[in-house]
Amino acid sequence: MSNLLERTILIAVESELQRQVARLDHPLNKSFFEMLTYHMGWSGIGSGPDAAGKRIRPLLMLLTIDAIGEKWELALPAAASIELIHNFSLVHDDIQDKSPLRRGRLAIWKKWGVAQAINVGDSLFIIAHLAMSDLHGKYSYESIFKATRVILEACLDLTCGQFMDIEYEKQDNLTIEDYWTMIAGKTAALLSASTFIGSILGSSNEATQMAYRDFGHYLGLAFQVQDDILGIWGVSSLTGKSNESDLYTGKMSLPVLYGLERSGQFAKRWKQSRINKDDIPELSELLRTDGAQLKAQETVDQMTELALKSLRQADPKGEAGETLYNISQRLIQRQS
Amino acid sequence: MSNLLERTILIAVESELQRQVARLDHPLNKSFFEMLTYHMGWSGIGSGPDAAGKRIRPLLMLLTIDAIGEKWELALPAAASIELIHNFSLVHDDIQDKSPLRRGRLAIWKKWGVAQAINVGDSLFIIAHLAMSDLHGKYSYESIFKATRVILEACLDLTCGQFMDIEYEKQDNLTIEDYWTMIAGKTAALLSASTFIGSILGSSNEATQMAYRDFGHYLGLAFQVQDDILGIWGVSSLTGKSNESDLYTGKMSLPVLYGLERSGQFAKRWKQSRINKDDIPELSELLRTDGAQLKAQETVDQMTELALKSLRQADPKGEAGETLYNISQRLIQRQS
Repeated sequence: MSNLLERTILIAVESELQRQVARLDHPLNKSFFEMLTYHMGWSGIGSGPDAAGKRIRPLLMLLTIDAIGEKWELALPAAASIELIHNFSLVHDDIQDKSPLRRGRLAIWKKWGVAQAINVGDSLFIIAHLAMSDLHGKYSYESIFKATRVILEACLDLTCGQFMDIEYEKQDNLTIEDYWTMIAGKTAALLSASTFIGSILGSSNEATQMAYRDFGHYLGLAFQVQDDILGIWGVSSLTGKSNESDLYTGKMSLPVLYGLERSGQFAKRWKQSRINKDDIPELSELLRTDGAQLKAQETVDQMTELALKSLRQADPKGEAGETLYNISQRLIQRQS
Repeated sequence: MSNLLERTILIAVESELQRQVARLDHPLNKSFFEMLTYHMGWSGIGSGPDAAGKRIRPLLMLLTIDAIGEKWELALPAAASIELIHNFSLVHDDIQDKSPLRRGRLAIWKKWGVAQAINVGDSLFIIAHLAMSDLHGKYSYESIFKATRVILEACLDLTCGQFMDIEYEKQDNLTIEDYWTMIAGKTAALLSASTFIGSILGSSNEATQMAYRDFGHYLGLAFQVQDDILGIWGVSSLTGKSNESDLYTGKMSLPVLYGLERSGQFAKRWKQSRINKDDIPELSELLRTDGAQLKAQETVDQMTELALKSLRQADPKGEAGETLYNISQRLIQRQS
């Protein structure tokens, strides 16, 4: 249930994204540009809103600025930047995870090969940073510098989270503590940067900036744990990802870690032998009866509560403020 | 034949690079950090100066600043940044080209797999940009902003050149005009950015900045054509790359394009059938007798002359100025 402000922002974001990606719209790069517009959801088979994704990060950034009482329109290049960085990481992630599908369509590496997919990710990342330089004339050099630094720190956390994700798929010794570090990097860093940068460009005071930053952080943690739950008990056709359960791919998600911690039926079966596709329904049911699903759900609720507490501290105003609360609820309660 | 200034700069660059890469020196990332230090030439089997590379880009940047009469020490983070970007592109290139060796050692993807190699490249790129933010307090926000923009534009040209390189390996219709666009991106963009940024941080006037930019650009073109010549007629064991001739991998290099243009013995043989390893000595000899080696060598000389003309216009002073001339000669006359 989006409102008018949200829809207005999303249209402006999409148009700004297209303007930024058009940096590569050149006759010599014709098929390079095609790969970028395909990934962004604007061209090729299945293009359209579903292929574009939710654009949640730019939305959070711009709503934050509006909720502080500043003009969100000025920050559109920064909003595009954060979305492009998110997309850079998706393109590289899909190669790394060998995921054949992204948002229900063939992933770039599946369609054009690994070499060009690496290049598409790299170029999205570069365009993201060039977008930041378009803030020139709209914000002070100091604000641009500060916002850029926040993005870069988030990106570094992202690659560290990604490192852990790849590393621990081969190992079985990820602790719950390490799990939080991993998803703080992989998922929460960019969401946190979105709201943090919104509050920087909105020129709020430092306490408010910290509150917005924490709001994005906890929202990201809640989002990822919910994603973990959906990766095991969700209707996979709704997620647009491949149909393989996280239990089959061996992904170290929080429900699995909780299940192993309980040392019950699930843990016994998990450690016994190689998991086949046929075992998945039984395994996910064991994990549920061992209480891991409930515990993970409680964790989502706790993280959501921390996010909302930070948001209340940030005290967002008006329609934008309400929308920030609504989006938080929507993100956490989503089934896909 | 390096001089004291050059050696002093190189030691300072290495130390700054280590300081920048240490951003990932954290117990949780132990093996991630190990991959980075391995690639940079500081750890693992075969580590040392040969494994580190020539650090030519930071050297050019800092010599430019000194030759303008400003303190090069202040710009060390920018010098590290450009070298890290160069290394980011090497790590991703090796995956894309499936090159098993880099500077005589196993490439990252060969040693740790494609997924982590993508991540190592990404993190080098991010650290490169974080390094730029360390210029804060040493240069005005405006200078940092301008220098950052130059780097990003160069990076975008780099990915476009890389796109063309991958794209044209499958096709046989690369024109000589497209070749220049490709290597302007793949090779000249970062060298040009190095001298250009040096002149920006050295606060020279705009005409001098353009002259330094062009110097780096033409030096890059000369360097790449020389590289193409070495890729066919060089002693491959000296290059530290794989032993496969560019004629075998089917790389579209300038001598090949010249050979095809001549429509002589080489062109006939090249188009006839699949090239086997045994055919390489004969093919490279045909290419030579068709005059492509000589023509490529003349092109190197022309580009070198354009580089030196720009350098004379830039009018670099003192020992740093002399060193810039020396390095240009050394780069072009290299045999490996």
